[in-house]
Amino acid sequence: MEIERIQLQKHGDNSGMLIALEEERNVPFVIRRVYYIFATKNDVHRGRHAHRHLHQLAVAVRGSVTFLLDDGSGPVEVVLDDPSHGLMLGRMVWRELYDFSDDCVLMVLADQLYDQSDYITDYADFLREVGGSMYPEDMVACQGR
Amino acid sequence: MEIERIQLQKHGDNSGMLIALEEERNVPFVIRRVYYIFATKNDVHRGRHAHRHLHQLAVAVRGSVTFLLDDGSGPVEVVLDDPSHGLMLGRMVWRELYDFSDDCVLMVLADQLYDQSDYITDYADFLREVGGSMYPEDMVACQGR
Repeated sequence: MEIERIQLQKHGDNSGMLIALEEERNVPFVIRRVYYIFATKNDVHRGRHAHRHLHQLAVAVRGSVTFLLDDGSGPVEVVLDDPSHGLMLGRMVWRELYDFSDDCVLMVLADQLYDQSDYITDYADFLREVGGSMYPEDMVACQGR
Repeated sequence: MEIERIQLQKHGDNSGMLIALEEERNVPFVIRRVYYIFATKNDVHRGRHAHRHLHQLAVAVRGSVTFLLDDGSGPVEVVLDDPSHGLMLGRMVWRELYDFSDDCVLMVLADQLYDQSDYITDYADFLREVGGSMYPEDMVACQGR
């Protein structure tokens, strides 16, 4: 599964903290888009989609949120509730977000600008695409050798 | 002064909000580094430096913080207390940050990786560099014509 939890290095002391995310250093992609989600009502579910190509790094910089993640082999629940915990999300991972705390600010770094055509918003379509070939691009590369 | 307050477009409704920052769309530079400052004690002052080349976009994604900004012509105070307010900081701007609220999370996008040599940490040095020529690179360019 293209999912990885990473520990981010904190710089600081008891007067305050700073965490830096740098492309090609501790972020394994070029950062082209940063978005943040806030003021989310507790009963709201967000996400419910997968991306065909996008790579993302998510951090709950304040508060907490739960991710339900699925690469087609079954769901995994991940809670983000620490600003030094990063969640790497690769391609073809269905995600649903819920249980936002009142103060939650979820920051996400992404390697592409917004592109509606990269979204799979129907779970049956997702299962069909991910089930037919987990890594279609790799398959093509292998066939070409 | 290379300082600009910008209004960021909010996407959402009363169930939640999302703001996206995209390179070369609403961020006028390539995003190479994202850092965030949190858990800052209220009596702490941060910053107290200028950058020779770095461009940054700062957003208080949660809580509030006050910037004291100076391009050599005198200080200006800016309060960030809204996740849809961005503060563009160009090169050669002395900045000091204080009055962090307990819940403040300050997110900053930058166009360069961390580089200690880009910092001016002595205010007298800053005044000398900014006073001698506001835009030394532009001056060189003009002289070369």
